[in-house]
Amino acid sequence: MAKFDLVVKGGRIGTASDVFTADIGIKDGRITALAESLEDGKVVDATGKLVLPGGIDSHCHFDQPAAPDGSRNADDFYSGTRSAATGGTTTIIPFAQQLKGQSLRAAVSDYHAKAAGKPVIDYAFHLIIADPSQAVLGQELPALIRDGYTSFKVYMTYDDLKLNDRQMLDVMALARREGAMMMVHAENTDCIGWITEKLEQAGRIAPRYHGTSRPNVVEREATHRAISFAELLDTPILLVHVSAKEAIEQIHWAQGRGLRIYGETCPQYLFLSEEDMGPFDGADWHGVKCLCSPPPRDKANQDFVWRGLENGIFSVLSSDHSPYAMDKTGKFASGPKPSFTKVPNGLPGIATRLPLLFSNGVQTGRISIQQFVALTATNHAKLYGLHPKKGTIAIGADADFALWDEAKDVTITAKMLNDNVGYTPYEGMQLKGWPVETWSRGELVVKDGTVVAEAGRGRFLPCDPPQTAIPRGRPVVDPALFA
Amino acid sequence: MAKFDLVVKGGRIGTASDVFTADIGIKDGRITALAESLEDGKVVDATGKLVLPGGIDSHCHFDQPAAPDGSRNADDFYSGTRSAATGGTTTIIPFAQQLKGQSLRAAVSDYHAKAAGKPVIDYAFHLIIADPSQAVLGQELPALIRDGYTSFKVYMTYDDLKLNDRQMLDVMALARREGAMMMVHAENTDCIGWITEKLEQAGRIAPRYHGTSRPNVVEREATHRAISFAELLDTPILLVHVSAKEAIEQIHWAQGRGLRIYGETCPQYLFLSEEDMGPFDGADWHGVKCLCSPPPRDKANQDFVWRGLENGIFSVLSSDHSPYAMDKTGKFASGPKPSFTKVPNGLPGIATRLPLLFSNGVQTGRISIQQFVALTATNHAKLYGLHPKKGTIAIGADADFALWDEAKDVTITAKMLNDNVGYTPYEGMQLKGWPVETWSRGELVVKDGTVVAEAGRGRFLPCDPPQTAIPRGRPVVDPALFA
Amino acid sequence: MAKFDLVVKGGRIGTASDVFTADIGIKDGRITALAESLEDGKVVDATGKLVLPGGIDSHCHFDQPAAPDGSRNADDFYSGTRSAATGGTTTIIPFAQQLKGQSLRAAVSDYHAKAAGKPVIDYAFHLIIADPSQAVLGQELPALIRDGYTSFKVYMTYDDLKLNDRQMLDVMALARREGAMMMVHAENTDCIGWITEKLEQAGRIAPRYHGTSRPNVVEREATHRAISFAELLDTPILLVHVSAKEAIEQIHWAQGRGLRIYGETCPQYLFLSEEDMGPFDGADWHGVKCLCSPPPRDKANQDFVWRGLENGIFSVLSSDHSPYAMDKTGKFASGPKPSFTKVPNGLPGIATRLPLLFSNGVQTGRISIQQFVALTATNHAKLYGLHPKKGTIAIGADADFALWDEAKDVTITAKMLNDNVGYTPYEGMQLKGWPVETWSRGELVVKDGTVVAEAGRGRFLPCDPPQTAIPRGRPVVDPALFA
Amino acid sequence: MAKFDLVVKGGRIGTASDVFTADIGIKDGRITALAESLEDGKVVDATGKLVLPGGIDSHCHFDQPAAPDGSRNADDFYSGTRSAATGGTTTIIPFAQQLKGQSLRAAVSDYHAKAAGKPVIDYAFHLIIADPSQAVLGQELPALIRDGYTSFKVYMTYDDLKLNDRQMLDVMALARREGAMMMVHAENTDCIGWITEKLEQAGRIAPRYHGTSRPNVVEREATHRAISFAELLDTPILLVHVSAKEAIEQIHWAQGRGLRIYGETCPQYLFLSEEDMGPFDGADWHGVKCLCSPPPRDKANQDFVWRGLENGIFSVLSSDHSPYAMDKTGKFASGPKPSFTKVPNGLPGIATRLPLLFSNGVQTGRISIQQFVALTATNHAKLYGLHPKKGTIAIGADADFALWDEAKDVTITAKMLNDNVGYTPYEGMQLKGWPVETWSRGELVVKDGTVVAEAGRGRFLPCDPPQTAIPRGRPVVDPALFA
Repeated sequence: MAKFDLVVKGGRIGTASDVFTADIGIKDGRITALAESLEDGKVVDATGKLVLPGGIDSHCHFDQPAAPDGSRNADDFYSGTRSAATGGTTTIIPFAQQLKGQSLRAAVSDYHAKAAGKPVIDYAFHLIIADPSQAVLGQELPALIRDGYTSFKVYMTYDDLKLNDRQMLDVMALARREGAMMMVHAENTDCIGWITEKLEQAGRIAPRYHGTSRPNVVEREATHRAISFAELLDTPILLVHVSAKEAIEQIHWAQGRGLRIYGETCPQYLFLSEEDMGPFDGADWHGVKCLCSPPPRDKANQDFVWRGLENGIFSVLSSDHSPYAMDKTGKFASGPKPSFTKVPNGLPGIATRLPLLFSNGVQTGRISIQQFVALTATNHAKLYGLHPKKGTIAIGADADFALWDEAKDVTITAKMLNDNVGYTPYEGMQLKGWPVETWSRGELVVKDGTVVAEAGRGRFLPCDPPQTAIPRGRPVVDPALFA
Repeated sequence: MAKFDLVVKGGRIGTASDVFTADIGIKDGRITALAESLEDGKVVDATGKLVLPGGIDSHCHFDQPAAPDGSRNADDFYSGTRSAATGGTTTIIPFAQQLKGQSLRAAVSDYHAKAAGKPVIDYAFHLIIADPSQAVLGQELPALIRDGYTSFKVYMTYDDLKLNDRQMLDVMALARREGAMMMVHAENTDCIGWITEKLEQAGRIAPRYHGTSRPNVVEREATHRAISFAELLDTPILLVHVSAKEAIEQIHWAQGRGLRIYGETCPQYLFLSEEDMGPFDGADWHGVKCLCSPPPRDKANQDFVWRGLENGIFSVLSSDHSPYAMDKTGKFASGPKPSFTKVPNGLPGIATRLPLLFSNGVQTGRISIQQFVALTATNHAKLYGLHPKKGTIAIGADADFALWDEAKDVTITAKMLNDNVGYTPYEGMQLKGWPVETWSRGELVVKDGTVVAEAGRGRFLPCDPPQTAIPRGRPVVDPALFA
Repeated sequence: MAKFDLVVKGGRIGTASDVFTADIGIKDGRITALAESLEDGKVVDATGKLVLPGGIDSHCHFDQPAAPDGSRNADDFYSGTRSAATGGTTTIIPFAQQLKGQSLRAAVSDYHAKAAGKPVIDYAFHLIIADPSQAVLGQELPALIRDGYTSFKVYMTYDDLKLNDRQMLDVMALARREGAMMMVHAENTDCIGWITEKLEQAGRIAPRYHGTSRPNVVEREATHRAISFAELLDTPILLVHVSAKEAIEQIHWAQGRGLRIYGETCPQYLFLSEEDMGPFDGADWHGVKCLCSPPPRDKANQDFVWRGLENGIFSVLSSDHSPYAMDKTGKFASGPKPSFTKVPNGLPGIATRLPLLFSNGVQTGRISIQQFVALTATNHAKLYGLHPKKGTIAIGADADFALWDEAKDVTITAKMLNDNVGYTPYEGMQLKGWPVETWSRGELVVKDGTVVAEAGRGRFLPCDPPQTAIPRGRPVVDPALFA
Repeated sequence: MAKFDLVVKGGRIGTASDVFTADIGIKDGRITALAESLEDGKVVDATGKLVLPGGIDSHCHFDQPAAPDGSRNADDFYSGTRSAATGGTTTIIPFAQQLKGQSLRAAVSDYHAKAAGKPVIDYAFHLIIADPSQAVLGQELPALIRDGYTSFKVYMTYDDLKLNDRQMLDVMALARREGAMMMVHAENTDCIGWITEKLEQAGRIAPRYHGTSRPNVVEREATHRAISFAELLDTPILLVHVSAKEAIEQIHWAQGRGLRIYGETCPQYLFLSEEDMGPFDGADWHGVKCLCSPPPRDKANQDFVWRGLENGIFSVLSSDHSPYAMDKTGKFASGPKPSFTKVPNGLPGIATRLPLLFSNGVQTGRISIQQFVALTATNHAKLYGLHPKKGTIAIGADADFALWDEAKDVTITAKMLNDNVGYTPYEGMQLKGWPVETWSRGELVVKDGTVVAEAGRGRFLPCDPPQTAIPRGRPVVDPALFA
């Protein structure tokens, strides 16, 4: 019997710490050796390639219904994971969404059922806590955390999802006590509602007004509020899909005060702007393709998001892949020229996340290869309890990696992304560098753009507690009161 | 007929701008002349005295019910105005409080009825908007503003008073459109409720825990939120009874960004601390005397409040006089050792406000006489539309002033304050300087501690729009949408 | 004998605190009465006019030599004061400049000699300390402070003027001990020198490069440094001619920390921008007209300077009038197309200061009349020990005032300014409102643009100590060591 | 021939990214394999041990003269490296110090001569630029950078070392152009001199006054200044031995603005305080042991330094080992009770750096193992161009590591540290965890506290350019002018 099932030879390997040239020995889907030279196994030639940990996308939505109108995500767990793997991602953490009134356990079962037989790569679940009832807080959520659902997201906006401040505190205290990671969608819902009502009354309904309805200050306010709660209870939290300069400043301020505040951003805030939502006059409704929340900001804002990646304010770059087709099942569920209030929020991006950052970040020198690995894989694994099994290239880790051709010129088209969406906001962008092969647990998943793995080969991953630094031990509220 | 009804001779006069020696000529209750030497009228000898504008107390509560338990303010419009005048104050702006479900106009009528025949000094009213119904927003409030009720207070906490964020935006937009001043009590109500529940469950109910239930960050959060709304709508607002260093920093930050954010603080945050609420162990319940909201902070915090006065972050110092007797009508309405949650919030201070600041601020050189006048009188008049009739010593202004004996040593006792409260948090404090005579519209109201004016001589003052700087004209939300 | 020499009737009077309508009675050059109606004296009709305190210009240069090349100020104490009075200014505080190696007392004598027989309005002197020798620190400066020269300016740049950090500390400690006001020109001289050398080597010498040689960060750095010294020694200081957003932020930060840091700005930072220094390519050398230090910044910066005036970061608006003719005696002393390094730094503005601010600040509602008075007159008087004699309209004050026609439309031309300069950077600007009469000590100085006063009528004003708030009493360095 | 010279079996390996269990195969002093199981080589049993990269100490002084008095470092390249290795450090980067007037090349030769035959571990050199003459800037420094001396330190204080601002800009521009790392000792020299003079005049000379002479604001000011220069020229710099909360805030502020500002701190700022310098009354002179610059701050300050490590403001923790014996060769060169101004600045710490941080940081959960590795080894290697040869455990890296016994209880004593100093500021501190074996290039250097390596086995390491992120490309000064 060969010592290795597979030997990846001659590649330049990157981790969040190092870049070095070595062969990788893989046995039973795990990395069992790294060495200058390995023999005895089937060889994959990685000469001249960069071998990076497969991406972990810790913010993506599959097969979820959209709030307003019965539309639903264009991607299920098959098409979505195909697309992820096409862009070098090997692990996803989508959401199991509780509906108001629903048992949390039932929500988890639902999403396991949706996933059954479909993923081509491994997956874990975040919970979405939409209804923190006594049953949820007292029994279901603690039990689910122990079962490996160690992170959950809460919303400060959206009528069917939002928690009020008191509920935020309840779940935050639970996250602290049980060792879970709380993700926060921070926008002030009343502000959005108030502005939106005024816009609709004035007939300002074109997609571009979506941005008008959610200005920077609305994100800043909610970010400050969430940080204040985290300070009150001394609980690490993660602000997701942070977009606005002013929200970034709040996070930086909190970090400087010694709080454990983590931040996530997304490619749409690096590469899109409000202008991509089309003109104010409604002459073009294609802007719904780029309609998401928080919305893309002005072009000057992009640089502040880049800085947040460069200087470590952000720990992770996720896609917030929440795709809707340009038809009645998605963006146009309410008709051909819908009010922006009737358009499901979200855009696709699970395939393009890594290539966009690699080409524009690593190749330009804005970030190092190590930062790229940390932002796209390792930090996700640590924040959500998948490390060291996932997110790195190290002895004992799953053999999840992508071979990157740094010299390859690629023009993004929707067709190459292997999803069910039909468009990409990044159509036509020129990239330098592409993940030409994606491997999961030592198995080839995508090669040269073609998905070669079977549906359903992906495995569910129960998560450990987050590897965030422990709380500082100095809550404003005496933890004896709530721990 | 004499040219003047009264000539105040030889005093050193202070305004928010200047200090100079002159005689004051008064006719029909108004100042008609200032000159090096005036004759022809009844003479008041002010030689060796400082003649300062009578204080305006723009934050005081008379004859209001307290929320939890049927207790009520110890002072009515007679005793309260007696006490105000005793401390050199000649104008008050108490609140006409709307009850949930009540017509705002009815609330105004109620408080006019309460005041009828009682005040010894002049008075205006702020409204308290507890129920911004369509009727209130659409008709009552605009009409009342036009009738001279040009300021109103909203609460972000207290179950029977609080507005949600959307209601905050509604009334703020109205304030902008109609030219009213919006006062904000900024504390996060859900945080307070959440902590309070935990404290009660743990049996931590002594008065001192009132402070525990409302930590600094809770005030900071709400302050940031109110500022964010003001930025969104480009509306000047006034944060009232600001107590915490961190809230002060938010206001300073906002002012530096060019926002029209005004701040008020109170003597309790300069002179009291959390320790004055008594021990945690409940060995002494007298601390309820100092139980108010926001609560007195730690001693180190006092210096930051002083700095806010010195450097202009605060525009006004008010008393937030909200007195409750130490009996079943007040602090002990729910029994002899009540949970802090059952103790009406508030403390007396309408008489001591000016003397405390004069002795500790002017006499120590922390602030100038001009700053003293601005903080205690002139700025109140400007912010609430009473200037130049009130708040200064100038031609045409009402002859409202106090004669200050800068050399007088006074030890504060409750007895000297001419109120109905029975105690003062400042009992025994040594002061240098005291207002030995208080005059209103050329009539002597208090002399050497004795009230000589009749109940009911005070007149109602309809207010002009606030003299705040105009909005910056750069709202985040297009004013065409709501103006 | 008439009771008053002059009665100004019916005007609307403004002070830093109030605006009210009254007659002003003047006797022996002083205001002796303000009243609803005064008789018995020669009448000046001010009906429909605004009567404001005459401006105090506490930053202006007359008859000084310029460093590099023997050029000198275009205005002497006659033409300069004529121009000042033309724009509503009645008091000036120019500089008595010490030369390196020169006795400070000799410098004072020199400037008294220059002034002799010339000024049409009253004047005091700031000292410029260019050489803080032992004689200066030990004897001359303390004695001069006692003699009424209670303020001095130091430079952190210019080879012939700059002090090093140690000298800064020496004079700052003296200012604290003796109760003088220290004015600081804050720019990092080494940075300027370094960049300038590079620019000259590259042949980049057009006037516009003057701005390139003194970027914002250079002003910010020196501002932070001066603030740090003031914090170290707990000494109030005044940053003069503050121009850059980033420097303003430093001052605001320091004020929030409770430091006594005062700021001055000038019209050139409100109304001019770098573009006014002409093109980079040298196609037009007229930009030397706007060449001053710090240089005008970009247009976006102007709004931050306005905010600093609106929100009280700045206490005073001065002109920094330092005029040079467009000929061999001034801007072109070194030839017709001089390197920016050879152009004397400075521009005229003593006449236009008040009208520019009135038209663009008061008439637009950015600032109130009271703020206008404080920024142009009262605060100058307080900071430099001339109050209450100067800077206000109050009993006992000198009768220095201007009558403003708020409705008058004026187009600025150099000709109307009654100076010796020959141009104004504001040529052609349209203003609303103008000081149609200027009075000094009850004597008419300018009427409808014509100077009617005699040269030499202006009197020298010894200054009291500054009325800044006292130091906070918390120096980092134990004052026993240096006080 | 065996495949490996050495196999380290069964240890738990830590890198800046990962922690995993593996065997390490070593050949010719380099790591050639990492695997679940390796055979064929001499075995080192690491079961139950943590195997971490050997520390890199990038701030230490050996065999340097001290400025004031002819004293010199107690450690040379033998004793110093012995001590370093005793504490788990395997690479040092001490200084080659230029004397004023000296050729830089000569300084380098001098220090190579001092090192010859002595080090037991590998070493590189930073340069100290004390005299940036034309020869240095034009030829010597660029050539030395190309020769592998890619970092240099400059001083903003110390009479024999300090550069003025213009010299700072010159060497910073050179660092940018040539790709070198500039380290800055940031304290305002004039402030220190000014205060020191006053202290000496007052007879305040006990060691504790050393702290008085260098207050926080003095470090903050110089830090802001250095940052401003770095912003002007868009050059990455490293602030060394940062001690004061206020300086940390400046760095955090700069990082948030997108500047490439790196920070280093030292154990003395985590574990010592001003009190360790002894009493003010001079009753005890032993405090000279803790006299260094910047000085240890107050105890409250320690927490802010910890936060800077936790949240990434600091990239590296170094020792600033600058040891002086408690005798005439060192601390008492000027006599038995010297003025603090005569005491050489510095303290030992090269052995204790890693154990102190491990015990107090990792074992308490303040930082992760990965952060420990980054702060003590990997980031040093990256910042100074030694990565990936040094600073990590990866294929191809030198086999430099320490075996850590996490359970070992150790009480620090000077005797165990294998240096020539005779004391340690940390005498008696209780630690949990110790590096029981230190290996360099596959050779055992220290085992159980005993140095087993020969003097002189350490090799000189030429450095690559720093792996800092590239400049942002947005200098304030056009780089065409100086690049």
